[in-house]
Amino acid sequence: MSAPDAISESATDGEVKDPARQDALEDGQLKQSFVQEVEEALERGDDEEVQALAAPLHNADIADLIEQFAPQDRAALAAALGDQLDPEVLAEMDDEVREDLIDMLPPEQVAEVLGGLETDDAVAIVEDLDEADKQAVLRALEPDERAAIEEALGYPEESAGRLMQRDLIAVPQDWDVGRVIDYLRGAEPDALTDDFWEIYVVDARHHPIGTLRLSHLLRSPRTTPVAQIMEGEQTLVPVGMDQEEVALRFQKYGLISAAVVDASERLVGMITVDDILHIIQQEADEDIRRLSGAEEGGIHERTRDIVRQRLRWLVINLGTAVIASVVIGLFAGTIEQMVALAILMPIVASLGGNAATQTMTVTVRALATDELTSSNTRRTIIKEIRVAIINGLAIACLIGLGAALYFSMPLLGVVIAAAMLGNIFVAGLAGVLIPIALDRADVDPAISSSVFVTMTTDVMGFFMFLGLASIVLL
Amino acid sequence: MSAPDAISESATDGEVKDPARQDALEDGQLKQSFVQEVEEALERGDDEEVQALAAPLHNADIADLIEQFAPQDRAALAAALGDQLDPEVLAEMDDEVREDLIDMLPPEQVAEVLGGLETDDAVAIVEDLDEADKQAVLRALEPDERAAIEEALGYPEESAGRLMQRDLIAVPQDWDVGRVIDYLRGAEPDALTDDFWEIYVVDARHHPIGTLRLSHLLRSPRTTPVAQIMEGEQTLVPVGMDQEEVALRFQKYGLISAAVVDASERLVGMITVDDILHIIQQEADEDIRRLSGAEEGGIHERTRDIVRQRLRWLVINLGTAVIASVVIGLFAGTIEQMVALAILMPIVASLGGNAATQTMTVTVRALATDELTSSNTRRTIIKEIRVAIINGLAIACLIGLGAALYFSMPLLGVVIAAAMLGNIFVAGLAGVLIPIALDRADVDPAISSSVFVTMTTDVMGFFMFLGLASIVLL
Repeated sequence: MSAPDAISESATDGEVKDPARQDALEDGQLKQSFVQEVEEALERGDDEEVQALAAPLHNADIADLIEQFAPQDRAALAAALGDQLDPEVLAEMDDEVREDLIDMLPPEQVAEVLGGLETDDAVAIVEDLDEADKQAVLRALEPDERAAIEEALGYPEESAGRLMQRDLIAVPQDWDVGRVIDYLRGAEPDALTDDFWEIYVVDARHHPIGTLRLSHLLRSPRTTPVAQIMEGEQTLVPVGMDQEEVALRFQKYGLISAAVVDASERLVGMITVDDILHIIQQEADEDIRRLSGAEEGGIHERTRDIVRQRLRWLVINLGTAVIASVVIGLFAGTIEQMVALAILMPIVASLGGNAATQTMTVTVRALATDELTSSNTRRTIIKEIRVAIINGLAIACLIGLGAALYFSMPLLGVVIAAAMLGNIFVAGLAGVLIPIALDRADVDPAISSSVFVTMTTDVMGFFMFLGLASIVLL
Repeated sequence: MSAPDAISESATDGEVKDPARQDALEDGQLKQSFVQEVEEALERGDDEEVQALAAPLHNADIADLIEQFAPQDRAALAAALGDQLDPEVLAEMDDEVREDLIDMLPPEQVAEVLGGLETDDAVAIVEDLDEADKQAVLRALEPDERAAIEEALGYPEESAGRLMQRDLIAVPQDWDVGRVIDYLRGAEPDALTDDFWEIYVVDARHHPIGTLRLSHLLRSPRTTPVAQIMEGEQTLVPVGMDQEEVALRFQKYGLISAAVVDASERLVGMITVDDILHIIQQEADEDIRRLSGAEEGGIHERTRDIVRQRLRWLVINLGTAVIASVVIGLFAGTIEQMVALAILMPIVASLGGNAATQTMTVTVRALATDELTSSNTRRTIIKEIRVAIINGLAIACLIGLGAALYFSMPLLGVVIAAAMLGNIFVAGLAGVLIPIALDRADVDPAISSSVFVTMTTDVMGFFMFLGLASIVLL
């Protein structure tokens, strides 16, 4: 590493990181004691103290602070923070918390906040507003900002067009390093975005033809043509591309930024990796919650929204559970003659459900992360079938022996073992085939897979176990 | 945006992206037809054709190509690729696929590959090898590389020390912009890493005191002292910090790179955002799979490993299912007298399990992403209880009415409604309290929550429903 030789040439003392900020934080989280301090200051109406406490915090920490407060107190805190409430704070804030907060601010103030943000952050805030607020805010914006935001809103939700920022640095391919540096130095501070890591090289038609890493720019002599040090092979993102797709490209190619192009391949914007970090997290969380029937809602969601989202899935689950019960009902007579069946039947259904969930989860994520492709689908299905048979046999032996001994009925053991093997086999098939089928039908497998899968394993579990029992045991 | 004024000054024609690469890819994935072409060339033993086909591909795409192949054919493909098999390809590859591949290569060749990688990528490969291979490979390495890798392996798994790269640029605080640029230009190409986006400013004790964005460096006059344009407020990562924690910092503060410091706060390495992209994905996937009892294994895992991992959880689930059955057994007599109970009881358990999973999933992720903190735990619990009561009442009414009408037994409807309300309430409590309790006990809630939660809802569901029935109905 190059540091030592550089270091050896100097020897002055340095300051340490802001200690006040360290007092507020612990393991990267705001200390409870600190949050309480702020709460107390707020209750005393001591705005100065509130601002003094928040002063050393990073905008992301101030956003956290507001999220930590009870919903009804957040507006008061925001007001007390005064100038500490930087536009960036709102950009950093959890969507649901921000919506609540913005609902309480007058459109003019919201517009003022947006004015202080990059287009992509401003769009992220505006797109969540309800139509009336949205229009009011847009009217209150400066014409040029308004135009930029409205253009972005013209692109589909969660598309690259919504994510990209328009401020970027693009230079003609015939420039040399020196000219680029002079251009960057020459431009007045506000004319250029601060937040760029790569420079795009474009041709006369403004088509990006290469990417120039600042490190390469810095390390090359002034006379070097940019075309010579740019990376020619680059990933261009069409404005319409879905953000999940964009995130996958960033991961796959380890991108720091990517050029966004319109239908005619002209450079219209840039997406930077810091936005992608949130999207990867967000898309993964969506999948997890959807798989569990909790939908989008995070812990900041309003109670009534949580209720609405989850109840929908509970009702659907009630429907599938009733269907399973109907199957049981078909064998009411059998159960009356042998209550042991009623005692054992939930085991068959439960393990089938579990085995299916294991397979389904892996399949859904493999689809979401482009690991499961047309080239390896067949192999994956065969592998899952093999796993299902092995695990099915193992569990079948265990439960079969247990039941035979406990109820001292060898045949009962055989029946439940057979049903268990059958159901775990069905579970493995359903767990891999249903998500793939939904994906091929352009339905998000994360949303609907569990319903179909658990219904399959419940119904088949009860049917195979009770059906076999009624034939073999009675 | 600054592009237009820059553009207007030039007007020459530019090349487009490599068309050959586009032929191989579709929506960012390798076309099945392309993979087949390669397979056929490989079968013909036509290595030249294989290499010609792979030539236009990005290393990440070549890694994909190998993953697409059946495990038994991957070594042959790797051999046929020859020089196309860049060390980066292995770094980009899925862990499990890479392990299999490396098992087939001689230590010397592996060592040669590692030599071509940054320390962090090399470590990522070595740490997965079994002890014998690891030692063999280390012995085959150049002394300095070996030292660097062994030092990294000295840090705990999944810690910042394993992630960081040692190649970074650090400059003394008393330098000015011009001197930094001259230093970068002066150093011979190999002396510095290519892959840096920020420069660290250190004091005489080599403590990082600020971060210098290349864009700021480029846009400042040569005479500007670096101390004046560096970002003083910075996030330092201790070598021992867990990678999940590191990833959260990157997300929270939108970092591109972070300085890693040892116990004495000296700068020892740097972590760049491209590594973090993978970690966020990986940690989220781990949580999803663990929640479903599928553990770490992705679709590339070997069958026997998948079986082992999943079977463990199926056996545990068998245990909890048996416990639930024992509860049912307590009421065998009741069921014999009223078979309707056997028909209805799975509904109570199933919906309890679902409601619990919804709450549990949201809680587990909120814990994993630091959203659920000591400051808002109480509020979150209260909210979940409220949601549970509302959803419980709704589902209870539906099933109560349904059962009462279907079996024309009003009391049965009352019993199942009461049991359902009770179980969904229990589910809500268990879903939020169990993960929080496990987290406080430093157990990963994602791994063990589901077992406890579903057992609770099964047992309580059967107990409340059958218990109430035996009291009220008989």
